[in-house]
Amino acid sequence: MNQRTASSGNASSRQQQPAEPAVYFGRPAPGWRERLFTIIFEADTVPGRVFDFSLIAAILLSVTVVMLDSIEGIHLRYGRLLNGLEWVFTIVFTLEYIGRLSCVRHPMRYATSFFGIIDLLSIVPAYAALAMPELHALIDFRLLRLLRMFRLLKLTSYIEEYSMLGNALIASRRKIFIFLSVVAILVILNGTLMYVIEGGPGTAFSSIPTAVYFAITAVTTVGFGDITPKTDLGRALTSLSMLIGWSILAVPTGIITSEMTLQKVQPKPTTRTCPECLASGLDADAIYCKSCGTRLPEYEHD
Amino acid sequence: MNQRTASSGNASSRQQQPAEPAVYFGRPAPGWRERLFTIIFEADTVPGRVFDFSLIAAILLSVTVVMLDSIEGIHLRYGRLLNGLEWVFTIVFTLEYIGRLSCVRHPMRYATSFFGIIDLLSIVPAYAALAMPELHALIDFRLLRLLRMFRLLKLTSYIEEYSMLGNALIASRRKIFIFLSVVAILVILNGTLMYVIEGGPGTAFSSIPTAVYFAITAVTTVGFGDITPKTDLGRALTSLSMLIGWSILAVPTGIITSEMTLQKVQPKPTTRTCPECLASGLDADAIYCKSCGTRLPEYEHD
Amino acid sequence: MNQRTASSGNASSRQQQPAEPAVYFGRPAPGWRERLFTIIFEADTVPGRVFDFSLIAAILLSVTVVMLDSIEGIHLRYGRLLNGLEWVFTIVFTLEYIGRLSCVRHPMRYATSFFGIIDLLSIVPAYAALAMPELHALIDFRLLRLLRMFRLLKLTSYIEEYSMLGNALIASRRKIFIFLSVVAILVILNGTLMYVIEGGPGTAFSSIPTAVYFAITAVTTVGFGDITPKTDLGRALTSLSMLIGWSILAVPTGIITSEMTLQKVQPKPTTRTCPECLASGLDADAIYCKSCGTRLPEYEHD
Amino acid sequence: MNQRTASSGNASSRQQQPAEPAVYFGRPAPGWRERLFTIIFEADTVPGRVFDFSLIAAILLSVTVVMLDSIEGIHLRYGRLLNGLEWVFTIVFTLEYIGRLSCVRHPMRYATSFFGIIDLLSIVPAYAALAMPELHALIDFRLLRLLRMFRLLKLTSYIEEYSMLGNALIASRRKIFIFLSVVAILVILNGTLMYVIEGGPGTAFSSIPTAVYFAITAVTTVGFGDITPKTDLGRALTSLSMLIGWSILAVPTGIITSEMTLQKVQPKPTTRTCPECLASGLDADAIYCKSCGTRLPEYEHD
Repeated sequence: MNQRTASSGNASSRQQQPAEPAVYFGRPAPGWRERLFTIIFEADTVPGRVFDFSLIAAILLSVTVVMLDSIEGIHLRYGRLLNGLEWVFTIVFTLEYIGRLSCVRHPMRYATSFFGIIDLLSIVPAYAALAMPELHALIDFRLLRLLRMFRLLKLTSYIEEYSMLGNALIASRRKIFIFLSVVAILVILNGTLMYVIEGGPGTAFSSIPTAVYFAITAVTTVGFGDITPKTDLGRALTSLSMLIGWSILAVPTGIITSEMTLQKVQPKPTTRTCPECLASGLDADAIYCKSCGTRLPEYEHD
Repeated sequence: MNQRTASSGNASSRQQQPAEPAVYFGRPAPGWRERLFTIIFEADTVPGRVFDFSLIAAILLSVTVVMLDSIEGIHLRYGRLLNGLEWVFTIVFTLEYIGRLSCVRHPMRYATSFFGIIDLLSIVPAYAALAMPELHALIDFRLLRLLRMFRLLKLTSYIEEYSMLGNALIASRRKIFIFLSVVAILVILNGTLMYVIEGGPGTAFSSIPTAVYFAITAVTTVGFGDITPKTDLGRALTSLSMLIGWSILAVPTGIITSEMTLQKVQPKPTTRTCPECLASGLDADAIYCKSCGTRLPEYEHD
Repeated sequence: MNQRTASSGNASSRQQQPAEPAVYFGRPAPGWRERLFTIIFEADTVPGRVFDFSLIAAILLSVTVVMLDSIEGIHLRYGRLLNGLEWVFTIVFTLEYIGRLSCVRHPMRYATSFFGIIDLLSIVPAYAALAMPELHALIDFRLLRLLRMFRLLKLTSYIEEYSMLGNALIASRRKIFIFLSVVAILVILNGTLMYVIEGGPGTAFSSIPTAVYFAITAVTTVGFGDITPKTDLGRALTSLSMLIGWSILAVPTGIITSEMTLQKVQPKPTTRTCPECLASGLDADAIYCKSCGTRLPEYEHD
Repeated sequence: MNQRTASSGNASSRQQQPAEPAVYFGRPAPGWRERLFTIIFEADTVPGRVFDFSLIAAILLSVTVVMLDSIEGIHLRYGRLLNGLEWVFTIVFTLEYIGRLSCVRHPMRYATSFFGIIDLLSIVPAYAALAMPELHALIDFRLLRLLRMFRLLKLTSYIEEYSMLGNALIASRRKIFIFLSVVAILVILNGTLMYVIEGGPGTAFSSIPTAVYFAITAVTTVGFGDITPKTDLGRALTSLSMLIGWSILAVPTGIITSEMTLQKVQPKPTTRTCPECLASGLDADAIYCKSCGTRLPEYEHD
């Protein structure tokens, strides 16, 4: 238990992760609530693990049921059975949500946390579908709960990989923002030009937003082909935007790749500190402090 | 004010950026023209910031109005309102353009600068559309004015990111030129072969330019599917060009990525060496040698 | 022969490779079985090389025959001839399989090894097609036998390249698993939303699985265009998922590239230091210190 | 003249380039042939430059004429004029080819060189089209002659960039070969499976080669959409192959990028050699030979 708390506290101080800092919700006083808390929020005990893996299975099954039910042939045959199963899962998840609320000391903290909202969102569509049946398929948003399950699979190492990916993205967020702004401007101008060249009511390029959709289709090299240029000028412009899109795909790749390479190449900063002058970040191989010349004590690498 | 001038002068000496070296246009003598100059061209005063953000809002709104007006359903209902709004924006931008011209000491320098031309281009289509209505949608080119707005968002750091991207592109411009030339030759030859194999009047491959458009579609992996090969030989050749296009996409990525990685890795090696033990690569901020503890002589940074 | 055994033993200790550690199957006692073993499983003798290259040729020809036979025009004309050829190849491969089984000391070890199963799979479909003709085309799975043939082409160097690619993938398997999980969740949610927006029985988005297939089409930038959004909201969502897919393509590239770059850059730093002047990072093959000329003590490589 | 010879000799010793080692064809004895040789094969004199740039212009114009002539509307109107122009260019190129042959000492060496064959190929289709009109469009292969023109544009630096790209490709040719083999096997097996699932005569998947063409379309993320799966199983398999293709696109990118990064990072090998023991490849900053301890003479960096 101590170990769990420590490691998750550690993790959350390093990065804003979706990992659940369960202590934040408040550990209840001993009694049935504490036993429930241990099962639901902790993964180190046997019942906790059983609970977590049952939950993963229930989520995956529940999403499968919704997907199967949307296929007409299957719906006609097994519709009642699948509908029944959906309600079973919905009731199970509802009970689990109530359980989570009831066993933490600060229910509001949980209810307004990232996963608290996702847990709520995963049961609301089932009830909302009673009034508006077209929302029924949104039950699939239960899938988002799986994000929490990453912590089950060799917790710490995954979180490190995860935060390395995250760090690379965060470290290059400005470059990515600039890149996306330029792409947005490019795509709107391109769409406008295509609308001027090919468009007008009645053609496939029926409005500027439609033309922008086409331009995105061309720049991202998707090319559905539901809307295509017919004039020579339109084709020339489209050729240009395909080539541009294909080339600038190299830019985000370059941004992420160089960031990830550097995060690994650059030596992890040491926390070695000179006992005399308190200069920190000394090289692991230094013998004398580079600031005051004092001979340093031995340094144990980890 | 001094600070602003200094930083922008600094930036322009480093790189040819679209950032506006406002001093270049000439600061007018004190009076209403200087007050206008401060508001329009500078971003450090409160009115300057208000002006800049209003301008961004006006540009985005104005483009949204043009896009909405192009959707037939909306045009029929709200056409008059949207048309009125467009004229409001056009008049505002026209007044702003006149304001910019009148408050700088060298109006011609401004008028012929990169952003001077864009400012003009963003109002011309609205007037031109009176004579040629099909040019109306080009009002969207106002969007290009947003490029100037990058400077509002944490000026210096953005410019650095921006110029790093730019430097990577400039440093590899020869490789990119060679790459694009080879792609151009490849695509024209490929198109010609497809025209010989599949083409002739009456088929989808109606001319060599059309076949080249198809080849670009295949090489860039866009694949609209409006023109597709029907013969076995044509499909074999297309398969080949798809595979080639897919593979050589690695080339520009490699060019940009290695350039960006190097720009970050390389510029910081010191040649500082301990005069006693000849240990080299010492940190620029070291006072004592980390190998033998000798006090180091002063180190001049470049 | 010794050399062969040594090198393949070496290779298999480094990595789990599909290279065949022929010794593992047991070398038979001298006699016809040993001669057959040498020809079939070893590549250093002249008959062994002849056998291996004949096998490659037979596999390629056999697959070509099956492919040609599937083209209707050719089937009508040359069906009998091609069918005969197929049976020739099948009988040859069957005899070879029996030969392999009979010449090793531990036939079960061979039969249950990776290539033992592939060898069996490459003859089963031909016989199974007698009962179920639609399985006939699966004869093409013979192609998998070519994987074994990599060892013929300058054995060791290929295996090194191969294991470097493999190492890069293995070293980043966690990041790749996380990436694919996130893509899977994204694609299912995206498909569900598209089904809610565009779908329902009768439309192209006839079920959630179909909508997920469309979402994969959009995110991977394939864009067949057999299913496309018709509503403005659907197009907006599709535009978003195209841009996301196009952008996150940078992530696996970054993972693999940085891993491959590091595998080449990193493994060679020495910690060798001159005992006199303490200069570090000396070359592993140096005899005298390059800074002060002192004779260095012996250096043990790891 | 000496300079030209030297630089091209230098270049060709470094790499097998398509640059023309004109000296190889043999410089003729002084007279009109030598004057012609200087103009045609050398780029340092004024007439040589004029000749080279006229040639580029002629090639581009000639290809444009062929492309325009293939557009039906233009052919009907200006067919005669364009046809005349084509013959003018063909005659000019024929004369040039004869000139090249006549002014070198070893005409056969030129005729069988890379560019000698391209020069011939660029005039043959025009004459062949007299007999077989459908070959007419192949006149566009003149475009390949532009490859020679890279040498006009700041010769040496371009050749360096070019050979760096080439080196990266050559250094990773084994990895690329393995990658392409695996893709080929994957695509044929995928196509076979799709044929078994969706195919049979009468459907879009009419034969295995067609199904392989579809599989290439999916794996390379081109996705024309002329052939698409209709069954659920086919769509599931196609989804898988789209995801695989999209992911393994990272592999060639990783190969090329890491190779290019390393070529720049790894210090250029020095040719510094110890005057005592002849050990070579010494570090540029070494003071004593690392093999025999002799003090080294000063090293001049380039």
